[in-house]
Amino acid sequence: MTKNINSQEEAVLHQAKISRRNMLKTAGVGGVGVLLGATGLGGLLTIKEGKANSTGKKDIIPFYGNHQGGITTKTQNHVYFVSLDVTTSKKEEVVKLFKDWTIAAALLSEGKPVGDLSSNEFLPPKDTGEAEGLSASNLTITFGVGPSLFVKDNQDRFGLKQKQPNELVDLPKFPLDALEEAWTGGDLCIQACADDLQVAFHAVRNLIRIARGKAILRWAQTGFQRTKQADPGQGTPRNLFGFKDGTINPDVKNEKQLNEHVWVQPGDGPNWLVNGSYLVVRRIQMFIEVWDRTTLKEQEKTFGRYRDNGAPLGQKDEFESLDLKQKNDQGEFYIPVDSHTRLSHGDGSQRILRRAYSYSDGMDAKTGSFDAGLLFLCFQRTPSKQFIPIQERLAKMDKLNEYISHRGSAIFACLPGVNQGGYIGETLFN
Amino acid sequence: MTKNINSQEEAVLHQAKISRRNMLKTAGVGGVGVLLGATGLGGLLTIKEGKANSTGKKDIIPFYGNHQGGITTKTQNHVYFVSLDVTTSKKEEVVKLFKDWTIAAALLSEGKPVGDLSSNEFLPPKDTGEAEGLSASNLTITFGVGPSLFVKDNQDRFGLKQKQPNELVDLPKFPLDALEEAWTGGDLCIQACADDLQVAFHAVRNLIRIARGKAILRWAQTGFQRTKQADPGQGTPRNLFGFKDGTINPDVKNEKQLNEHVWVQPGDGPNWLVNGSYLVVRRIQMFIEVWDRTTLKEQEKTFGRYRDNGAPLGQKDEFESLDLKQKNDQGEFYIPVDSHTRLSHGDGSQRILRRAYSYSDGMDAKTGSFDAGLLFLCFQRTPSKQFIPIQERLAKMDKLNEYISHRGSAIFACLPGVNQGGYIGETLFN
Repeated sequence: MTKNINSQEEAVLHQAKISRRNMLKTAGVGGVGVLLGATGLGGLLTIKEGKANSTGKKDIIPFYGNHQGGITTKTQNHVYFVSLDVTTSKKEEVVKLFKDWTIAAALLSEGKPVGDLSSNEFLPPKDTGEAEGLSASNLTITFGVGPSLFVKDNQDRFGLKQKQPNELVDLPKFPLDALEEAWTGGDLCIQACADDLQVAFHAVRNLIRIARGKAILRWAQTGFQRTKQADPGQGTPRNLFGFKDGTINPDVKNEKQLNEHVWVQPGDGPNWLVNGSYLVVRRIQMFIEVWDRTTLKEQEKTFGRYRDNGAPLGQKDEFESLDLKQKNDQGEFYIPVDSHTRLSHGDGSQRILRRAYSYSDGMDAKTGSFDAGLLFLCFQRTPSKQFIPIQERLAKMDKLNEYISHRGSAIFACLPGVNQGGYIGETLFN
Repeated sequence: MTKNINSQEEAVLHQAKISRRNMLKTAGVGGVGVLLGATGLGGLLTIKEGKANSTGKKDIIPFYGNHQGGITTKTQNHVYFVSLDVTTSKKEEVVKLFKDWTIAAALLSEGKPVGDLSSNEFLPPKDTGEAEGLSASNLTITFGVGPSLFVKDNQDRFGLKQKQPNELVDLPKFPLDALEEAWTGGDLCIQACADDLQVAFHAVRNLIRIARGKAILRWAQTGFQRTKQADPGQGTPRNLFGFKDGTINPDVKNEKQLNEHVWVQPGDGPNWLVNGSYLVVRRIQMFIEVWDRTTLKEQEKTFGRYRDNGAPLGQKDEFESLDLKQKNDQGEFYIPVDSHTRLSHGDGSQRILRRAYSYSDGMDAKTGSFDAGLLFLCFQRTPSKQFIPIQERLAKMDKLNEYISHRGSAIFACLPGVNQGGYIGETLFN
C-alpha cells in the first residue's frame, strides 16, 4: 500500500504550492485536490492521487449553478432523504456547517471523496470509503431549511425570525392525517438522489458526519424508482399500486412554467429564497394487500385513469388533457368526482413538480402487512396556493384514501443555488 | 384501451385451442401465454398480447435447471428477502403453493407478469402491475424451507418430520447475539435478487399474494450493492465500513469447489436436498458512527486488511493468499489474532459462498443512529462444518464485534432446481 502523502503536515506543505483556486480547478480534472474546512477539524486535507472515484463526466450533474440540483433534474433511480435537527445554538456554527457542506457536496457530486481516503492512519479517514471506485451516478444533493430553524418553542434561535417566509410554516393538519413523530418535521433536510443507492448513502452519511456537534439525524427514508436499465424508454414510472404516477408535471425544460410554479420569484417573500423552492415531503403508506383485493374497475375509478396506459378514463392517451366533463352512457362522469386525478387537478391552476419515489421498509409490525408506499416529494413556489389546497381537496374526499395513510410530513425551503466560491445558505445567513 | 380477451370465459375458449405445452412455449416467445393455477383461483388466465414485460433475453436468468438461481448467480444490485410462516395445516395446500410459485417464478424470471394484466375489469388484476414495461433485470427467485416447516411446537405439521435433515435445525445461540423476533426464523423464505428494486419488490409481492390463505409474511428486508453502472469493472463490493467484502469466496465457475462447499451431495443427508444448499441469513447492524470515529489503523487491524485495495495487512494484493504467519518488526502478526479476516479464515478448510448486501433502514429509534448494516447471506453444503464453526470463532473474539450487532438470524434449506414441468419442492413433498 503506497501512500502519496503520509500526514497532514505533508499535506500542508504540498498545499502551500498551489493556490486554492487552482486546487479546486485541479480537483475537477485530475483527482488531486484539497478540501478546505469540510472536515470538522478545520485542517487542510489532500485527496490521494488516482483514488478519486470519478469515472469521467458522463454521469456528473454540476453542483454549482443558479438553482440547486435534484429539483428539475431528471429523477434518478434512488433517493436517500434525511431530516436533521440543529443542536448548536450558535449561528456561526450553522454557517460553518453550510460552508463545509457546500464544499463536500460539490466534491461528492463529481464522484470524489470528501477528503483524503487514507493518508494518515492515525486519524479516522476523512471519507468513509464505501463509494471508492464508484462513479458519480448522477448524484444530486439538495439542502433545505425547515420552519423550526427560525423559531422553535417561541425562541428566535439564530436571529433569523424576521427572515422566516410566511410560506415556511408547518403544514395544516389535514383530515385523516396519521402522522408519526418518527417521520415528521425537521430543522434541515438533505435530499440525495443518485442512480446508485450506495452512492446516495455515502453522500448522506458523510454530510451527517461533517455535521457532528452541530446537527443530528431526525429521520431518514430511502426510496426507489424503476431503473433506467429496466426501462430504457423512461416512460412515466409506476407507483406500487401499478399506476403511472407523475403524468401531469410542469415541463422542467420550460423556464416560464418553472418560474410560474416551481422557483420562488422576487417579491414572493424574503429575497434570500429567490431561485429556491419549497419542498413538501409526505411519507404515504399504501395498503398493498387491500388494494390487491380490489377489482381493476374499482382501481381505475379510484385513480380516474386506466392502469395499462395511464390515459384518463374515457380517453385514449396518457398525455391527453383531462376531459372532466365527458360522461358515459349512464350519464356519469368518466372521471369520477371522488377520483384522485380529478381532485388533484382541481381547476388546473395549481401545479406542483412531483419527484416521488416508492419505499419498502419491510413489514409493518402492527399489521403484518408490507410497510411500503410512496415517499412523496414535491417542489413549488407557494405551498399555500399549491400543495395545501390540493391536499385539502384530496384529504376531504379522495377515493384513494381508503388505500393509503399519510404517516409522515415536513416542509422545507430549498435554498437557491450558488456559484463556486459561495456557499448554500449565504443569502439567508448574510 | 383495447382488450384482446375480455373475460375468463373467453380465456378458457381461447385456451382450448392450445395445448398447455404449446402455451408455455408461446409464453416464452411472443407475449401471449396462459398461466395455470398460479392465481389462487385455480382459473385459466391469459396474458395480454404485447404486454409481457420482457425486453429480450439479455437480462434474463433461466429459472429452470439443476440448481436454483440466486446462489451461484453473479450478485445483482438489489435483494428483497422475505421469511414466511405457513398458516395452512394441509400438506396438499403447501404443495399447491409451491406448484403455483414455480409457475409464477418462471414467468417473473422472464420479465413477464404472473397473469393477465387487465383482461377482466370485474376481478382484481392477476398481476399487480408495477413491473409492467420493465425488463427482467436479471431477476432470480430462490425458495427455501426452514426447520419449523418440519416440526413446530413438537408437532410433525405435515408428516415431513422424518425428512428433516440433521443440518436443518435452528442455529446455536452465539455469544453477543442480540436477535429480535422481528428478523428471526421462518417456515419458508424467498430471496428475490434483481438489478432493479422495483422488479424484485414486484416479484415478492406477487408471490406473497399467491400464498394468501396458505402462508403469511414473517419478516422482510431489502438490501443493495453498488450497481454495475457505477462500477463497470465490478471489483469486490465494499461494505458500509468502506472495506471490500467477499474477497475469499468459492469460485462459482469451479464445479468441484461448488460440490465441495456449496451444493448438498448424495449421502450428506436426505436425498431430497441433493443439489440444494443451506442458506444462513444474519441481519447485522453496523455502528456506523462509532466506526467513523476510529482511526484508519484501528479499522485496518480490525479487518486484517488495508482499506484502499483490500490486500491482507503486510501484503500487496487483494487476492493474495493470507499469510497468517508473517510478523512485523515488533514481532507482532501483521494480521492480528483477533482480526476478522484471520478468525473467518481459520485453517482455511471452512468456506462459505457469501452473497451479502448492505441495508439502510432509516434511523434506529432507540439510539438516533443509522439503522444500517449488512444483510449477510451465505450458502453452504453443511452448516455445522461451515458457518457455525466460523461464527463461533468470530463471536468469541472478533475485534469487529465492537462495531456490529447481530440482530436477526435464520437458516433455510434452499431446494434443488427443477426442470420445466416439475415444481420447486417436488423431491421433498413427493
